[in-house]
Amino acid sequence: MKLGSCYYPEHWPENLWARDAERMRAMGLSLVRVGEFAWSRIEPEAGRLDWDWLDRAIDLLGDAGLEIILGTPTATPPKWLVDSMPDMVAVDAEGRPRRFGSRRHYCFSHRGYRAECRRIVTAMAERYGDHPAVTMWQTDNEYGCHDSVLSFSDAAAAAFRAWLEARYGTIDALNAVWGNVFWSMEYRAFAQVDPPHLTVTEANPAHWLAYRRFASDEVRSFNAEQVEILRAHSPGRANTHNFMGFFTEFDHHALGRDIDIASWDSYPLGFLEQFWFSEDQKRAFLRQGHPDIAGFHHDLYRGCAGGRWGVMEQQPGPVNWARFNPAPLPGMVALWTLEAFAHGAEFVNYFRWRQAPFAQEQMHAGLLRPDDTEAEAAHEAREAARVIAQLGTRQPAAAQVALVFDYEAAWVCGIQPQGESFRHDELTFAFYSALRRQGLDIDIVPPDADLAVYQAVIVPSLPTASEAFAQRLAALDCPVMIGPRSGSKTADFAIPEGLAPGSLRTLVPVKITRAESLRPGAGEAGDGWGIERWREDVETACDGEFVTDNGSVAVVRNGRFRYCAAWPDNRLLDLLVKRIAAEAGLECTRLPEGLRLRRTAGHVFAFNYSDHAIDTAPLDLGDPDIGARTLPPAGVAIWPTR
Amino acid sequence: MKLGSCYYPEHWPENLWARDAERMRAMGLSLVRVGEFAWSRIEPEAGRLDWDWLDRAIDLLGDAGLEIILGTPTATPPKWLVDSMPDMVAVDAEGRPRRFGSRRHYCFSHRGYRAECRRIVTAMAERYGDHPAVTMWQTDNEYGCHDSVLSFSDAAAAAFRAWLEARYGTIDALNAVWGNVFWSMEYRAFAQVDPPHLTVTEANPAHWLAYRRFASDEVRSFNAEQVEILRAHSPGRANTHNFMGFFTEFDHHALGRDIDIASWDSYPLGFLEQFWFSEDQKRAFLRQGHPDIAGFHHDLYRGCAGGRWGVMEQQPGPVNWARFNPAPLPGMVALWTLEAFAHGAEFVNYFRWRQAPFAQEQMHAGLLRPDDTEAEAAHEAREAARVIAQLGTRQPAAAQVALVFDYEAAWVCGIQPQGESFRHDELTFAFYSALRRQGLDIDIVPPDADLAVYQAVIVPSLPTASEAFAQRLAALDCPVMIGPRSGSKTADFAIPEGLAPGSLRTLVPVKITRAESLRPGAGEAGDGWGIERWREDVETACDGEFVTDNGSVAVVRNGRFRYCAAWPDNRLLDLLVKRIAAEAGLECTRLPEGLRLRRTAGHVFAFNYSDHAIDTAPLDLGDPDIGARTLPPAGVAIWPTR
Amino acid sequence: MKLGSCYYPEHWPENLWARDAERMRAMGLSLVRVGEFAWSRIEPEAGRLDWDWLDRAIDLLGDAGLEIILGTPTATPPKWLVDSMPDMVAVDAEGRPRRFGSRRHYCFSHRGYRAECRRIVTAMAERYGDHPAVTMWQTDNEYGCHDSVLSFSDAAAAAFRAWLEARYGTIDALNAVWGNVFWSMEYRAFAQVDPPHLTVTEANPAHWLAYRRFASDEVRSFNAEQVEILRAHSPGRANTHNFMGFFTEFDHHALGRDIDIASWDSYPLGFLEQFWFSEDQKRAFLRQGHPDIAGFHHDLYRGCAGGRWGVMEQQPGPVNWARFNPAPLPGMVALWTLEAFAHGAEFVNYFRWRQAPFAQEQMHAGLLRPDDTEAEAAHEAREAARVIAQLGTRQPAAAQVALVFDYEAAWVCGIQPQGESFRHDELTFAFYSALRRQGLDIDIVPPDADLAVYQAVIVPSLPTASEAFAQRLAALDCPVMIGPRSGSKTADFAIPEGLAPGSLRTLVPVKITRAESLRPGAGEAGDGWGIERWREDVETACDGEFVTDNGSVAVVRNGRFRYCAAWPDNRLLDLLVKRIAAEAGLECTRLPEGLRLRRTAGHVFAFNYSDHAIDTAPLDLGDPDIGARTLPPAGVAIWPTR
Ligand SMILES: [Zn+2]
Ligand SMILES: [Zn+2]
Ligand SMILES: [Zn+2]
Repeated sequence: MKLGSCYYPEHWPENLWARDAERMRAMGLSLVRVGEFAWSRIEPEAGRLDWDWLDRAIDLLGDAGLEIILGTPTATPPKWLVDSMPDMVAVDAEGRPRRFGSRRHYCFSHRGYRAECRRIVTAMAERYGDHPAVTMWQTDNEYGCHDSVLSFSDAAAAAFRAWLEARYGTIDALNAVWGNVFWSMEYRAFAQVDPPHLTVTEANPAHWLAYRRFASDEVRSFNAEQVEILRAHSPGRANTHNFMGFFTEFDHHALGRDIDIASWDSYPLGFLEQFWFSEDQKRAFLRQGHPDIAGFHHDLYRGCAGGRWGVMEQQPGPVNWARFNPAPLPGMVALWTLEAFAHGAEFVNYFRWRQAPFAQEQMHAGLLRPDDTEAEAAHEAREAARVIAQLGTRQPAAAQVALVFDYEAAWVCGIQPQGESFRHDELTFAFYSALRRQGLDIDIVPPDADLAVYQAVIVPSLPTASEAFAQRLAALDCPVMIGPRSGSKTADFAIPEGLAPGSLRTLVPVKITRAESLRPGAGEAGDGWGIERWREDVETACDGEFVTDNGSVAVVRNGRFRYCAAWPDNRLLDLLVKRIAAEAGLECTRLPEGLRLRRTAGHVFAFNYSDHAIDTAPLDLGDPDIGARTLPPAGVAIWPTR
Repeated sequence: MKLGSCYYPEHWPENLWARDAERMRAMGLSLVRVGEFAWSRIEPEAGRLDWDWLDRAIDLLGDAGLEIILGTPTATPPKWLVDSMPDMVAVDAEGRPRRFGSRRHYCFSHRGYRAECRRIVTAMAERYGDHPAVTMWQTDNEYGCHDSVLSFSDAAAAAFRAWLEARYGTIDALNAVWGNVFWSMEYRAFAQVDPPHLTVTEANPAHWLAYRRFASDEVRSFNAEQVEILRAHSPGRANTHNFMGFFTEFDHHALGRDIDIASWDSYPLGFLEQFWFSEDQKRAFLRQGHPDIAGFHHDLYRGCAGGRWGVMEQQPGPVNWARFNPAPLPGMVALWTLEAFAHGAEFVNYFRWRQAPFAQEQMHAGLLRPDDTEAEAAHEAREAARVIAQLGTRQPAAAQVALVFDYEAAWVCGIQPQGESFRHDELTFAFYSALRRQGLDIDIVPPDADLAVYQAVIVPSLPTASEAFAQRLAALDCPVMIGPRSGSKTADFAIPEGLAPGSLRTLVPVKITRAESLRPGAGEAGDGWGIERWREDVETACDGEFVTDNGSVAVVRNGRFRYCAAWPDNRLLDLLVKRIAAEAGLECTRLPEGLRLRRTAGHVFAFNYSDHAIDTAPLDLGDPDIGARTLPPAGVAIWPTR
Repeated sequence: MKLGSCYYPEHWPENLWARDAERMRAMGLSLVRVGEFAWSRIEPEAGRLDWDWLDRAIDLLGDAGLEIILGTPTATPPKWLVDSMPDMVAVDAEGRPRRFGSRRHYCFSHRGYRAECRRIVTAMAERYGDHPAVTMWQTDNEYGCHDSVLSFSDAAAAAFRAWLEARYGTIDALNAVWGNVFWSMEYRAFAQVDPPHLTVTEANPAHWLAYRRFASDEVRSFNAEQVEILRAHSPGRANTHNFMGFFTEFDHHALGRDIDIASWDSYPLGFLEQFWFSEDQKRAFLRQGHPDIAGFHHDLYRGCAGGRWGVMEQQPGPVNWARFNPAPLPGMVALWTLEAFAHGAEFVNYFRWRQAPFAQEQMHAGLLRPDDTEAEAAHEAREAARVIAQLGTRQPAAAQVALVFDYEAAWVCGIQPQGESFRHDELTFAFYSALRRQGLDIDIVPPDADLAVYQAVIVPSLPTASEAFAQRLAALDCPVMIGPRSGSKTADFAIPEGLAPGSLRTLVPVKITRAESLRPGAGEAGDGWGIERWREDVETACDGEFVTDNGSVAVVRNGRFRYCAAWPDNRLLDLLVKRIAAEAGLECTRLPEGLRLRRTAGHVFAFNYSDHAIDTAPLDLGDPDIGARTLPPAGVAIWPTR
């Protein structure tokens, strides 16, 4: 695994560049990410391209022995470009054009901006496509960041209409599958269809789902245009895009098919603070992040581009964008780096080389402080580099369990939560966490992945499960767990004939006759476990495997297939995972709170995410090659595989 | 009392219609509500009216022996109509035109849309006005739903100016009564007056009150135009509109004068979740709804159209629109139905016949599931029909107590709460609940109702109480209770000369010299009771009947008149109700928590809203004719009147 | 000290005026504030000036022996004026023009409105500038109230561009110091720069700081235009403006340089409810206000215009604008009045003379009720007048401690809080409160004040501390305390070379290598004290004076200079204040909770802000001249200086 950093030569005096490159190398870094956000320097005014400075930077970095990940600058069009076509900006859901002054101020559907992007990407690819130091391209930056997937501009509306016509053929077909007869929402022509925002009450969920699919497709085709150019002009280089954490606004599996390597930006402390974790978790893991945040995304993005992936941005210290921004516990940056290794990353880039003293991210830590001295993370990067060199080749162990995740499922549950605590990504994460608490290795995969290679398959919630998916599950011979709301919707957001779980009923003969969402405190208890948030009425000939004291069927088992008709609490999740693992012949390791394991082909890794020391003796792995048997907080221990 | 359901033939294949009608009849239903929301099918494009399908549906339903409530489709103008006059939509308080894609996307003040409504209603009335199966018309649907009473469109602004000129005659008169000299808000012409939104800080409350009155009048005249057409073309049919719960944005008493039967849409579980009930109440009545939600509205709407009323939509299971959507306790749908009977409803329609598998309300339960099998509510509807048949004629017992409620009072307190916990409808509901906890039967009536027929009169809060109202109270010879803020404002939102309670001072000789609003926890305690939220300084020669330990006068009594100078807690409300009942010669029945009584001419009903069994023996009513002495949760017992 | 009231003759029948004036005099009032908000009466239509009524009012009030503070009416331009140039209104941050119907509906940058203001102010000044009764002018009213400093109008954008050009000279200079190379935000011309609102994510903090500085300058120059006219036409009269509480949106020190007397509007109960006080404090001081609210602002505004100041509006009872509006404890209005005296006020005006029965503030108490009888406050004003007469001349004692406060510092922390609980004004207030808990007298001063006259200097937080400021601190020979984030930013919002605290490092040799913000509960404990919200990593050769149990350096001392590298809790603040006072040779008086002291040249005052009696015997001041040794709630005691 290579280490690197995100470096913006345009931010620094040119006389610093050579020394920076030399220090990177000395720190054990071999990668450097350059160029995204630099449009205003590459093209200071319309048509005047200034390559000189970038030529020098790339040559210098390459000559220093660094491999370059070169970014296309399309996330930050310069002001002169925006002024030349003011309608290129996205319009937010409130109907307000988003203004220049930060980044991502463009609409994916604006044809004029797309042409400009093709022009600048072509120019860059022609200039640097064959440069020997340039080994990877990154398109744009964090598609969707700052709520930028959806736009309600005229450009988006026009593109949406064309997309609808391509999907539905005739307006009558659209009316029919959306159920537009409801509330007289029928259209006479595609030209009558608008984006679904600012309606008096909620718009048709089918309308929203179509808009989300359209918007996701727009992101994908925006990206594909760049990749096509890069492939043409820069053969042999890998193409990537840096995805984000807990972000489901477009279909990363679809976009991932168009790139060579998936990458993501890992900010465990910021994510803990900003997302739906409990106050208790935010307290317990304040300076470490929840122990499954990094792993979840590693395992997710490994499944997005055929298995190749890396960390494009790794948090190296406090960030600037969460409600509260604590510093990581000493050791965490090394831990995060090694955990990426254990999950099979090809690279980890620290964001950023040197903390910028100006502009929006001046309070975002780097490997160096703004005063050019080393920040805490520098030492940890050096230490991680040392360990990685020692470990040699990187090859993750094959995962035992597949967790099926679908972006569309997140859209469906977001469009129609039916109960405000039903969050699709939280449920997926809860299943993932339960598997990890038992020491299992996991692949998070799309519904169309090859599931036959796993010993167990978990489908936390897949509302639009297709008949083909049901057939593929049926063909498996391992335990399969299907979660609530699965099969509850058709492809166009209707309740299937025969009710949920639709075609999945061939696996577990249940019919969900009614569902209810429950306010906090209104769950039901079983014997040492419980359900909360969501409960379904189940009609079935099978016995309930888990039934609450009230008689609610929580889990139905039919041979190797299970259906969970509720939001399970952690205790029920643990019971389920243990049973499934036992049936699958998988050995579970009940881990102490905060400890996590991951295996590669050659090693077993243990990571201590807690804030106290943990004795690994009960794991029965002996003395580690690297690290100590008693893991300090933020400690990592590595054993050879037995 | 007739039972029925809301049925949308346009949503279903025509070959289902006959079987549906037959099943309705078999279930004990004799009514069917049809047609609202069907504009896009009745008039698929401008001027092309397609009656065929509706002719067949109405004939078929009528032939099956069902009476039809036919709705005008004006709540959902089709897209072609909106596109033909884009300015017909309402503009929200943020200044944004509300967009097509759901329902209620129109401005009540748009003259062009009004003309279109008259045209389509005339066409429908001409077509079906004499149809023997059509026995009732419903105008539009849920006026005001989704915050749709107020519009800040140009059409509304123009109509507002005309309304002001009609009310005030000259701009100088308006300036004078509004006190526009304050902050130089004086106008020189009606044309200068705008709607009061988006001002830098709050607009003149007199300006807001005028805008609310105007908007209420617009709803009323919009409805009256339809009723006039329906009466002309469909003689002998009752006209109704379906009101909502906890909704005070327009004057339902005023609109009620223009229709024959008031009806409302009863969703007790959704209302419990969405309104100001405490967390404790939301927990205790999760699957039942607060025991006074249904009764409160039954008693309110019975007073809106001369006594005739019904339930146009009855919740039959989980709904789709609350933050959390639990299922009713088994038995609740029957209980709600019978409680409507006990309060004198002419009909109860379940919303809806069959759960639609598509569009916005696909998660809203019906009597049938989307798979065409019976949902839980079907059994309860059948059971309710059986009981109703057994009970025979419906005639509510005359109420003992009048609770005076005024929509304008809600507007005044909403425009100027003065303390954020002063909610007019919550205070009204608290008085209502206290009366019901003592087993009393109540009419909720407007200030101009005939109050002489009651044994006690409660006026929870009536800020703009008129001199005529004071005189009418003075003429009564029963106990009268007047609540805080009553008489505190003139008709144009000023403090009356001589201060509050204005002309009501002739009843209780008090002067409110100052009022304060209190944050939670800052109330005052009396001996076993307390006050909270609101307290008034009282100048009076009378003794305080209830005085706090701090010396605050909470209640002043002057013979049969009382004035309550604070927000009373439930214990004080109970004490007051018991005293008033005793003075009025009314027998109270202190009911166990969750139990409620209601009397008709022939029967006494008991409803168990709690989640545990209640023994009715202490009520001393003997063994019931229907139901058991020990009422299970959601149980109903019925005794003959002794 | 003079007492007065705010009086609006235009609100009342002319036949009340004489009696009002007579009653004011009888109550002990000698001032009357008149005229702001009266534009629609002074100029009912464009160009038609109607002075007659105001001539009569001013003559009558003056003849009654009252001195008049005359306000310019520019806070409330009449509708005809707004209609004549609709783009004169401010545009809010959401891009919506703010509408007519309340007050402050103008943009400070609109050149047309500025001309209108000069015209009307000139006319008023010419008319009344030499009137013997007019002794003071107030410009406009509460600049900035209702979020009215910032405008995003075209007028503001144009003025901003000119301001930028004046400040930066060239666009390249601007790009350089803002760091616009970050995210390609570089401009090619000043004409390309927009206000920083509605950007996709946060705009450059340097951009925001510039916009705030610009907006503050606009307020200042708007005011200066009026003052210049008033000085020209009304020689010998003092000019003032009435500032608000806890309001930092423009630089009051800068504006204060242009006026003769600073004044402010004191609403202790409303401020307690609306600002960041804890629930416990809101409960404990419900009817008194926090004991430091009034003092803090007295001491702040005394430093804004060279030492002269007054209270332009004093809360006399419940107000109408807080979430909850309780009444003051009996005695509080007198207490507030006398506390203003003790801090050196030249006048206190009660707002308002008589409660208006109409329009927006009808629920705002006055000295008289709307029914013309005396409200509670009238008695207390009379009592305060009596005591003031007894005390004779007003001369505040010289303060012992300087607290350095900077408006720019509040902007910097507001633009980039980095942790959502870092509130600059709350931190300043916490230091102020700690000093007052020890009985010390304080001046709150700008960074450029003469600090040599104090025995101790406290700088709670000054991010943009200049080198000159550091040098001036270095020249002092008293203890100096410098709080967190001081010196952390350059003048254009960048991290200084050499990191924080920048040039302050010459005083305390520390380097802040990293800072973290902490969620509630994530602080650190020392021995009987703690830190919370914010913590800095300190690199220093000095020993830590206060170090947490975790080893975090909270306070570093270097001789007479201290740097506090964290948000100190109240216990640490108390320890620090006591140490500093001891070093400064200042005698502390540890006061009981709720008691506060203030000294004038001739007296020591004690104020009981608690809701229970306090025995002052432990203060060892003997029997007071005025008031009792045991102070009742809201009691004041006054001793002669020994
Ligand atoms: Zn981002
Ligand atoms: Zn509704
Ligand atoms: Zn104000």
